[in-house]
Amino acid sequence: MIDFRKAQELVLQRAKSFGTETVPLEQAAGRVLAETVHADRDYPPFDRASMDGFAIRFGDLEKGMRRFAIVETLLAGYAPQQAIAEGECYKIMTGAAVPGSADTIIRRENAEEKNGVIELPELPIEALPAATLPAPVDPRFPWRPFQNIARKGEDLRSGDVVIDRACVCTPPVMGLLATLGHTTVRVQRFPAIGLLTTGDEVVPAGDAVSPVQIRNSNRWLLESALKNAGAGVVAWDHAPDDPALIRQKIEGLKDKDILICCGGVSAGDADYVPGVLEAMGAERLFHKVAMRPGKPVWCGVSKEGKIIFALPGNPFSCLVNMTLLIAPYLRACFGLPPAEPLGLAMATARKKRSPLDEFFPVFVSSSPARLTPVTLNGSGDIRLGRQANALALHPANEDDLAEGAVVACYSFV
Amino acid sequence: MIDFRKAQELVLQRAKSFGTETVPLEQAAGRVLAETVHADRDYPPFDRASMDGFAIRFGDLEKGMRRFAIVETLLAGYAPQQAIAEGECYKIMTGAAVPGSADTIIRRENAEEKNGVIELPELPIEALPAATLPAPVDPRFPWRPFQNIARKGEDLRSGDVVIDRACVCTPPVMGLLATLGHTTVRVQRFPAIGLLTTGDEVVPAGDAVSPVQIRNSNRWLLESALKNAGAGVVAWDHAPDDPALIRQKIEGLKDKDILICCGGVSAGDADYVPGVLEAMGAERLFHKVAMRPGKPVWCGVSKEGKIIFALPGNPFSCLVNMTLLIAPYLRACFGLPPAEPLGLAMATARKKRSPLDEFFPVFVSSSPARLTPVTLNGSGDIRLGRQANALALHPANEDDLAEGAVVACYSFV
Repeated sequence: MIDFRKAQELVLQRAKSFGTETVPLEQAAGRVLAETVHADRDYPPFDRASMDGFAIRFGDLEKGMRRFAIVETLLAGYAPQQAIAEGECYKIMTGAAVPGSADTIIRRENAEEKNGVIELPELPIEALPAATLPAPVDPRFPWRPFQNIARKGEDLRSGDVVIDRACVCTPPVMGLLATLGHTTVRVQRFPAIGLLTTGDEVVPAGDAVSPVQIRNSNRWLLESALKNAGAGVVAWDHAPDDPALIRQKIEGLKDKDILICCGGVSAGDADYVPGVLEAMGAERLFHKVAMRPGKPVWCGVSKEGKIIFALPGNPFSCLVNMTLLIAPYLRACFGLPPAEPLGLAMATARKKRSPLDEFFPVFVSSSPARLTPVTLNGSGDIRLGRQANALALHPANEDDLAEGAVVACYSFV
Repeated sequence: MIDFRKAQELVLQRAKSFGTETVPLEQAAGRVLAETVHADRDYPPFDRASMDGFAIRFGDLEKGMRRFAIVETLLAGYAPQQAIAEGECYKIMTGAAVPGSADTIIRRENAEEKNGVIELPELPIEALPAATLPAPVDPRFPWRPFQNIARKGEDLRSGDVVIDRACVCTPPVMGLLATLGHTTVRVQRFPAIGLLTTGDEVVPAGDAVSPVQIRNSNRWLLESALKNAGAGVVAWDHAPDDPALIRQKIEGLKDKDILICCGGVSAGDADYVPGVLEAMGAERLFHKVAMRPGKPVWCGVSKEGKIIFALPGNPFSCLVNMTLLIAPYLRACFGLPPAEPLGLAMATARKKRSPLDEFFPVFVSSSPARLTPVTLNGSGDIRLGRQANALALHPANEDDLAEGAVVACYSFV
């Protein structure tokens, strides 16, 4: 029996890309970027006014001039018609290009405009300076060259590598891609996932259920968890606890990139799944992980080289394995770095119950962040989803957790 | 100018459901539940074996019996054929129904099975007890009635309210709904969102761009952020900085449930959006919020009673307002409680830059959770999405933040 960290390591060693594809920008949100993104030009592409105000020549200020004639109003999107000379200024709006003849913007509220002329009042203290520039020291001369101007190329130079690693196309990344002129995006292809639930006692959610049967919940739990993890189930099937039928159903899913089985992995008389998989030639990576719940999980690689996860059938066990093994595997296949658990503090103490690594459901509350354990009657308790929003780890080598103890917290997939 | 908390309050006061609809379970993942969910029967629906082992009568143990004849093997999904009598037991598998004649399960590893008979060895210490039962004290008699049995109805009683509040259909909720036999689910309807980007300098991502123009990034940033927030843009349009054209485009979107405008909200000469909206009869809730970035935001309600958010056009300002105002508004419309920011500790110190509430981009690292500020050249810096994954608040009333200071952290939508 191995440790869950070792199990993660064995699984991640088998990670591989399922290829890439080019999609329109419309379909890229949430996908994993699979190309190096460069700046097509400088950013900002021009000296850009970052405030509404008046663009002047800094040299004029140094000469003691405090009165300027407005020669033109500059709006975002337009080029100036003329250059300014001594004693002249532009009225300029946020986002507009600052012409080469000007190098300083006085904020609108720090000048008095009247009849086409502005005057700078005594002690026109500018609001706080931009962080990258030294603060002015002389209240009688508070200006700095290029104040209130975002300089051409200060964010990025043309040709700069902007993103050179796999990352999810989050809203800011989508904005960035559009800014740089991408109308298509190369992204990681989704794997085709086959899901096989098993169990004589399990009937579809819509069917009549006898007193000794239960409805299939893991299909739905896993399908939505896989969707959240950035992939999706393309084929689902169910097998009773019969080795021949299990084998037949697995054969039917063997062209899929990933096979996930659920149920029938423990050591009971009707737990046939690992035996069937191994009889079919699958190489076992591990069977049983020293954690609870979720311990009986089996993982291997088919003859065709496809990874197979065979999960225990209790819903909480299923979700623990999804969170600890399958979601990290998918991230790794997409080239994403591991999503490290947050270290957060316990709101209450917790007793140790077993010598294994224990995962327990928690509700994450805030300000400051605290974890409150959610009580369940074991891993088969169907109320899991009512209150918990994450999983926390009570490590094998730690005794009871005190209030305030910091533990690893894994968001539910 | 109001505080962002006051702005949130004014926005949340206008929250309202956009109605509900019934969707098949296949389409419910990620949607917001809009019905009270009851237990259709007891859960567990039967006394359920939670371990593989042998089901016996506790009274037999009390009488000193340690040897039992196996009369039947019980698998999950099947009813027993007969009751056991004194000195008899069932072999039973996890998930199987425990017949009424048995009341105690001895784990498989704690009994010796041979020729259809089991014997309990000396000192058969059971593994750690279930949390809800008292620990055994006598090592010579370590058994408890109903050990390793999940009792009928211990999780839920038939008719119990299981969920009586709005909640997202997460994977465990999906599993729960399926368990309870739901093949359709009543969920909150999506609002129809209209998005109007504005600006003479803004061209579509695929078009040629002059040296003084920029590409439209906010459309993509907002569309994907709205999708992540549980809604989606159904109609997007763009207007130049022209009051008549802005009005015409807004008219075209007035049947939408929510209107989001982007750009043209400040006090510049070409900032027409708030004026146009107010001229069209919209009631202003607020214009300008005492925060940076994002300060110039305008919010109001149209003559038709639809909420309107008019955001400043810098991408970071846009995302701040999306995170602080629009996402919370949508949650409230769906009936969800506010997503409180997590209180997390700063990995480094941070200087205060303005007398306002300052939101700054951070990267959340883990173990323990720490916030590292991401440096940007102002709110127009397009590199926002490269490193940051959340927003943190440097409150107006606090001076420089020390390393380790706990601040509110808002995940990017």
